[in-house]
Amino acid sequence: MLNKVNREIPDEFLKNGKEVYQGKFYIDGKYVKKFAPTTKIFEKPVDSKICKSIREACEKCGAKDGITISFHSELRNGDYVMSMVTKVLIEEMGLKDITVAATSLGDAQDLIADYIEQGKIIGIQTSGIRGRIGEVVSAGKLKTPAIIRSHGGRPRAIEAGEVQIDIAFMAASTSDNQGNSKGTGGKNDFGSMGFGMHDPLYANHTVIVTDTLVPYPNVPCSVNAINVDCVVVVDEIGNNKKIQTKEARMTDNPRELMMAENVANIIAATPYFKEGFSFQTGAGGPSLAVTRFLENHMCEKGIKMNMALGGVTNSICELMDKGLVNHIFDTQNFDLGAVKHLAENPNHHEISISQYANPANKGAFVNMLDFVVLSALEIDTNFNVNVITGSDGILRGAPGGHPDTAAGSKCCIIVTPLTRGRMATVCEKVVTITTPGDCIDILVTDYRIAVNPLRQDLVECLDKAGIKHVSIEELKNKAYSLVGTPADLKWEDKVVAIVEARDGTILDVVRKIKPYTL
Amino acid sequence: MLNKVNREIPDEFLKNGKEVYQGKFYIDGKYVKKFAPTTKIFEKPVDSKICKSIREACEKCGAKDGITISFHSELRNGDYVMSMVTKVLIEEMGLKDITVAATSLGDAQDLIADYIEQGKIIGIQTSGIRGRIGEVVSAGKLKTPAIIRSHGGRPRAIEAGEVQIDIAFMAASTSDNQGNSKGTGGKNDFGSMGFGMHDPLYANHTVIVTDTLVPYPNVPCSVNAINVDCVVVVDEIGNNKKIQTKEARMTDNPRELMMAENVANIIAATPYFKEGFSFQTGAGGPSLAVTRFLENHMCEKGIKMNMALGGVTNSICELMDKGLVNHIFDTQNFDLGAVKHLAENPNHHEISISQYANPANKGAFVNMLDFVVLSALEIDTNFNVNVITGSDGILRGAPGGHPDTAAGSKCCIIVTPLTRGRMATVCEKVVTITTPGDCIDILVTDYRIAVNPLRQDLVECLDKAGIKHVSIEELKNKAYSLVGTPADLKWEDKVVAIVEARDGTILDVVRKIKPYTL
Repeated sequence: MLNKVNREIPDEFLKNGKEVYQGKFYIDGKYVKKFAPTTKIFEKPVDSKICKSIREACEKCGAKDGITISFHSELRNGDYVMSMVTKVLIEEMGLKDITVAATSLGDAQDLIADYIEQGKIIGIQTSGIRGRIGEVVSAGKLKTPAIIRSHGGRPRAIEAGEVQIDIAFMAASTSDNQGNSKGTGGKNDFGSMGFGMHDPLYANHTVIVTDTLVPYPNVPCSVNAINVDCVVVVDEIGNNKKIQTKEARMTDNPRELMMAENVANIIAATPYFKEGFSFQTGAGGPSLAVTRFLENHMCEKGIKMNMALGGVTNSICELMDKGLVNHIFDTQNFDLGAVKHLAENPNHHEISISQYANPANKGAFVNMLDFVVLSALEIDTNFNVNVITGSDGILRGAPGGHPDTAAGSKCCIIVTPLTRGRMATVCEKVVTITTPGDCIDILVTDYRIAVNPLRQDLVECLDKAGIKHVSIEELKNKAYSLVGTPADLKWEDKVVAIVEARDGTILDVVRKIKPYTL
Repeated sequence: MLNKVNREIPDEFLKNGKEVYQGKFYIDGKYVKKFAPTTKIFEKPVDSKICKSIREACEKCGAKDGITISFHSELRNGDYVMSMVTKVLIEEMGLKDITVAATSLGDAQDLIADYIEQGKIIGIQTSGIRGRIGEVVSAGKLKTPAIIRSHGGRPRAIEAGEVQIDIAFMAASTSDNQGNSKGTGGKNDFGSMGFGMHDPLYANHTVIVTDTLVPYPNVPCSVNAINVDCVVVVDEIGNNKKIQTKEARMTDNPRELMMAENVANIIAATPYFKEGFSFQTGAGGPSLAVTRFLENHMCEKGIKMNMALGGVTNSICELMDKGLVNHIFDTQNFDLGAVKHLAENPNHHEISISQYANPANKGAFVNMLDFVVLSALEIDTNFNVNVITGSDGILRGAPGGHPDTAAGSKCCIIVTPLTRGRMATVCEKVVTITTPGDCIDILVTDYRIAVNPLRQDLVECLDKAGIKHVSIEELKNKAYSLVGTPADLKWEDKVVAIVEARDGTILDVVRKIKPYTL
């Protein structure tokens, strides 16, 4: 069945009320019956919830074949916890048919790829999917299609009971012996536990994995003891120096700086750029650089930002330290500067991904955004964006908060080079749709700028400010003229991943790529 | 059917799995499937959730005959919100068959008594029940028996789906236009919203009622916008000067001071009185005075309290200010000094009643208590305590956190005069059991002290410290010798209230008192 963005969704996935994507605010005003976990009662006081091993904790929480386990990814490329836990469950305890529900998956979890190949892990639910895991899933080795959700789609699915977590394993940089735990303090502090803190509210069991036990009570905390079954102390939960990746550093590339400057100029040309505006940007080079140029406009106009949202880098923290930002709402930290800043500043707040972006609660923070600046792997002439599959059709990305902030914000700007290597970034039809085009307002490339025709109000703003723009078709034509028209990818029938829209409808599917033959 | 504390529970109340009380930790280790509300989705951004009247908010939330509405009682005797809202529902909208689920009911809500008499309010679920409401319920005018629960029993019942809240009306001293709200700031600040903040997590709809609208975002907050449907701004949510009642003032009665000194001496004689101990006391005169005497022992021994818990008065705040308390965990404030202290001290933490005392979560704060000092209306020779019915059998009290802290703490001390007026406080059989005797360890009266024979370890501590004690029978005999043996109350068959144990089993019932005839 064709959905609203013209993707063919196989009927086999449209069961149990699952629907195809039907537009931007399809579930607004509807009612949702929330899922409820089945949790263990600790009526009698216990001196300590500490278990001597991950295995003991798994056994206490009833780990068995077929369970769904969850993890957060705040330690990013430095995470050890997911590998440690799955190794115990699969190699030590001999369990199988495991489903992993993670906020993201990447190079730190290569072991998961092995377990997929061995058929021990049969389901993946995630936002990001990168590295070897992306390759084995793309090769069709996972027993069931991976389910890709946005950061807001994940808590929605959990609250709807579409993901039922048997055991949530929460990496925490500090915990007390009752399970009051967080990502600040300790030897591998990672800052916000915004990705993780929603899971223990809906999981049947929760295990805290920490490398730094602190005296009771470890408060304020991100995960509260009233939702924790067991605490396990390990040598290292990860290596927090690997939180910052090279992509998350400030760029000195002149093309990226030029794009960033254009984005800031566009923001300053809209009516939303006024005292108390709200803003989110990604952690990629050009997105980061926007903050720098925006500062100039803010000082010139004499205005402050009320709220910065999302994953947080040191550059937005510095803006707060200069008195230019009132509040930072933080779901994850992209560098250790931001980690430290969260711990020390009362107006730098940790929020859960449900507060951040869940489309099914009563108003997530993304709904209060004036501006979001986002990147794209590809964007097509309908403004549909792909941030999950590479130009070779292999899974190597993450929707993250992209679809959520794009839908919630008043002005969503995509910043991306016109081409990457030999590939056109602006194209006729993206490989996979992860954010629908009606959520995207403006595209800034290193060539020219395009405005979504749905936003004539923004067209007028740019015209008034003398900011030139062209049609997105012109950008696509220019890209094709530079690197050639891309050949269509060849797919097999088998669906390896389902891309859910943030509201739970099916936005797209990713099929197995046909091996290249001469 | 007779329960574990020898009370006859009528079979008619033992339906749908409801059981009679069977002992202190009956539900420990069991599993509970939690209830899930049905909530409205706010996917599309809204500029403001403000409604122009309580009526508009009620209509938006689908108010109709037969609904259950909830309120918190942090404004205590100064609350206007419950009366305002019920008046709109019943008089303006003409609704009937309303059930009120409140954390407490008292003189501020006399209007509720009228609606009970008119048959418009047909159900009451509460901890406290005082004033005219207690009288009309005791007179059998409420259509269904009132259900009396402890502070921990309330969130347990809500999470178990035994109370299903259609609309939670939350008095907030400040809110922004999205519903981020709390009890600090504003013109009627009442401090902790610990009693209220759990309801919006389980209610189908939540309405914030405030008299002080503040700029977005009002953070950190007690109730988060993601759980709020509507915000209503009224002239006054109450009169916060009425939070402090005369009972909550420091005593200068020599008998009360003597009892308080004895309590402090007992505490100091136990092995739990050491660096980092935890403590809760009530807000009554003698309980408050304990804090003063305890300070001397702490200074003498050179130790600090790690955690003070519960309803908070200025006297415990002053102890923190002197550096003698590390953390205060606060469910409600008994005076404006404590309200101010909560707003200004990062180690003075607001907690919900679920975190505080819920026996069905994974370990409430009461489980970490070393000592709790509590009062009683009556205590019998089995150490069963009554804090709900007067000696005339009329409802005029509140279990509050009494049963929860008594069960969770290592040492529970009751402090009460041997007689009150012409009535024996220590008696053969309390009118109503609200806290079972096996949760009570020591009784301190203005005559002598008694230790529960179940606690031979504490008997030894007192003997070693040279603190004299007698049997509780001796206390009862002395009381009877002073004021005479009380005549039995005469009851009708009709049950007017059910007293639930904190675990949801039935501890006792209160029947209609037989009118006195000459």
